Formats: sequence, C-alpha cells, structure tokens
Amino acid sequence: MFIIGELINGMYKNIGKAIKEKNKTVIQECALEQIKCGADALDVNCGPASGKPIDDIQWLVEIIQEVTDKPLALDSSKPQVIESGLKVAKFKAIINSTTADAEKLAILVPLAKKYNAKLIGLTISTKGIPQNKDQRVELAATIVATCSEQGFPVEDLYLDPIVLPVNVAQVQMKDILEAIREFKIISEPSPGTIVGLSNVSQGTRVRSLINRTFITMAIAHGLDAAIVDPLDRDLMDALITAELILNKQIYCDAYLDAYRRK
Amino acid sequence: MFIIGELINGMYKNIGKAIKEKNKTVIQECALEQIKCGADALDVNCGPASGKPIDDIQWLVEIIQEVTDKPLALDSSKPQVIESGLKVAKFKAIINSTTADAEKLAILVPLAKKYNAKLIGLTISTKGIPQNKDQRVELAATIVATCSEQGFPVEDLYLDPIVLPVNVAQVQMKDILEAIREFKIISEPSPGTIVGLSNVSQGTRVRSLINRTFITMAIAHGLDAAIVDPLDRDLMDALITAELILNKQIYCDAYLDAYRRK
Repeated sequence: MFIIGELINGMYKNIGKAIKEKNKTVIQECALEQIKCGADALDVNCGPASGKPIDDIQWLVEIIQEVTDKPLALDSSKPQVIESGLKVAKFKAIINSTTADAEKLAILVPLAKKYNAKLIGLTISTKGIPQNKDQRVELAATIVATCSEQGFPVEDLYLDPIVLPVNVAQVQMKDILEAIREFKIISEPSPGTIVGLSNVSQGTRVRSLINRTFITMAIAHGLDAAIVDPLDRDLMDALITAELILNKQIYCDAYLDAYRRK
Repeated sequence: MFIIGELINGMYKNIGKAIKEKNKTVIQECALEQIKCGADALDVNCGPASGKPIDDIQWLVEIIQEVTDKPLALDSSKPQVIESGLKVAKFKAIINSTTADAEKLAILVPLAKKYNAKLIGLTISTKGIPQNKDQRVELAATIVATCSEQGFPVEDLYLDPIVLPVNVAQVQMKDILEAIREFKIISEPSPGTIVGLSNVSQGTRVRSLINRTFITMAIAHGLDAAIVDPLDRDLMDALITAELILNKQIYCDAYLDAYRRK
C-alpha cells in the first residue's frame, strides 16, 4: 500500500498560516510526523488562499526536501503550479491530478513524461461526476488509452474512482468499490488505483470509523494507494491489517510495530 | 447481514458450568445480551465436555426460547444432537453444520428439509481442509448440487469457506475472500455465504482488530452472514458501517444507534 499523507494542505488553518508566514518549522514537522506514522509520500497543496501558488509550491517542495527524500504529490488543479513544483522536485514526484478531459490529458500526460513523474488520473470530466461504475470505467479507459498513445508507462498511473460522501451518494459506494476492481483489468500491466479517502466521511459524525471501514473494503477490492491522514492511528491499524490479510507483509505478533518501523 | 452470536458454547467456562449445573439464568442472560448487541440468531453448542449432548441441547433450546424467538443455530458435529435440538426448536432453526462429504450430506440435507431449517455447509471434506479457492468452490458446488437434487432450497443454504488463522495460513486469506465472491455465482438464486469469524485471529495478539478487518473485507466480497461475538462493540461498529457503505441501511447521523435499535 502506497500511503500519501494529506496534511500539508493550505486549507488547514495551521498550514495555511505557515505558508503565508514562511514558517518552515511547522511544515517540516508536519512532514516528519506523517512519515513517522507510515506515510510513503506527502501531498503538497498550497490551499485556496495562496495568492502566489507558483512560488509557494516551490518553497514547500524545497523546505520539505530539506528533511526527507520521500516522494511529493504536487496537488493543484493548475498545470503551471504543478510544473513549478516539478522543476524543483529532486525525487520521483506524483502529479495530483489530471481529469479524463482531453485538454487536461494533453497537458498533464506530457508533463508527467517530461519530469518522469507518476500521475493520478481522476475519473471525472467536464460532464461532471460519474453516476455509476460503467461511467468510471469508461473514463478510466480514456485516461489509460491516452497514456499508452503518448508512451507514458501505465505502471506510473494511479486511477481514482472519485470517492463521494456516503451521506449524499450512498447508492454509489458499491459502484466505487467495484470500479477499483475493474480498473485493474483495463490493461496489462495493470494501472495503479488510488482514492482520496477523507471525502467519504465528509459531513458525517463518525469520520474515522467510516474512513477506515471504506478503505478496508477498497483494499479488499485491490486498492494500491490512498491519500489519507496517517496520524489517524485506528485508520493505519486497519490498513496495515488489511495488507496483512492479503499477505502483503509477513505475519508476526508485532506486525503493527514492524510495519511502522519499515 | 445475518449475525449469529457465538457465545452460548459449552467450551466457554461460564457456559459449560451453567450447562452442567442447569443454571438457566446464565444462559438466558447470555442470550439476551447478545441480542441486545445486535445478534439476529444464536449459536447453541453444548461444548466438548457435555456427557449427554442430546439432552443438553434440548434443555438449552427450551430455556433460550423462554426469553426470545430469535432463530437458533444448532451446533454439533453429531447429526443426532442436531436432530434432538430441531425437535424442540419452535422457530426456523439453522443446522450448524454439514461438510461436503456424501455421507454427511445424505443425512443433514434431508434433516434440514424435514424440519424446514436453514443449513450451513462447510467447504471441507474427509480429504481435509481445502488448500485454495478452487478446492473451496468445488466443494461448495458439491453441496449446492446435493441440495438441488434433494429439493432443498438453495436460499436456505449458507456456504462457509472455512476461515483459517491468519498466523498459520496467511497465504490462503485472499483465496478465502475470493471464494465468498465465487460462491454467490454458483447458482441462481444465489446460496448465502457465512464465516465463523473468530478463527481468523486464533493465537494472535490483536484479535478484535484482525476479526473486524477480515469481516469488513469479507462483506466487501459479498458475505451474507457471520458467527461472531456481538459483544465486541468495535467489531459490530465495523460491520454496521460496512453494511452502510453497501447501502443496506439508509444513512443517518446516528446510523449505529439506529441499527442497534432495529
């Protein structure tokens, strides 16, 4: 399981303030804390309040790289912000994200190729959020086809089925899970699969319980990666145990500790 | 999800003692406590120390029926013990269980039919525990075929893939989960699927975590029923939430309480 920590995001008050004040200690501590809890990579998002995201993302990438060599997921809807981050990323970065729209793919797939980055592909388009499994698989196939045409390795692609809040789109949850399973058989080799987890529990009262239950079910369906809050210990315990059950790490009595020391 | 409480089992010290002493209060309280926590049915097992299980199971069934009309799962490897329980069961009972062996099926399928009971079919035979998914599906198909031949309704059959402890059979866990998925497509209408959950964490240090993670994954694969400890609140929370995600109960902020009040 490839775990991307979600906490370096300017939409969180402490991070937004740290970006504004260029307080690198806050950012670096947030990076190290997430890694200590099991993050394999860190999402980096300047947040909606950043007036100069092109500069801010470079500052974030540079100061995070002072304390870790974990990959960074450059998170923006603006390709020029992502490219600004890519220019200073020293380690294999992750582009978060492209949609299935032709114009977006035409910019972001070549960008991922140029910088040898991984790419997250959201199964969404200007037509809106997909309403069922088949629409998700169709958009996923469009993304995979474009990557193949442009010579971008499908192994470096992560397809995201777009996780919706269970309290507003309950009828779609099963389709979202089944889409993960179907994404894996779109091509050979298989593309990776990813979810942005926290959205599933948006607006609910028991967020951690819903988050960890959903991700456990998604792992059962073949999920490869997730953007999560790695400081949620119950979530990480569930995720590590699901991996154990799928025989992705060897059982020992202290398997939770062993995973965290990896 | 059809939840069978596992606690009325003579192998537990308090229950074994209560059976020996014919202390009906202990048994009745254990029944009511499990139902309060969400059990839809109760397993009834005299335990290995019972010298006269044919009498003991009748006593258990009768005193439990004094306090509840929930179905009882008559749990014994001996058909004559099961039939003894069936004779006094007032509500639709569950036979726990038959194996896939011809001799067992020849006795237990007619018994289930005669008493209009449900039947749990273990995908195991005298050849031993199945080693992979295909062997499980083959044994399941044998059980389904026998039920069909004898006119026993497949909707009243629950197939059990035989859950093994993760610390000794880690390599088989994925096959066990996938077997649940495949059992559902053996016939139309589908047979039910069930697991005896607690075995998965036998001998491990974090039993509840492994139990609830495994059952969440099994529910994602289409599990219909489980024999569990309903007093494990974290387990029940996970199970209720997995059902919620599969849209099997309508979301409300207090969905956990709503389920428990059902």
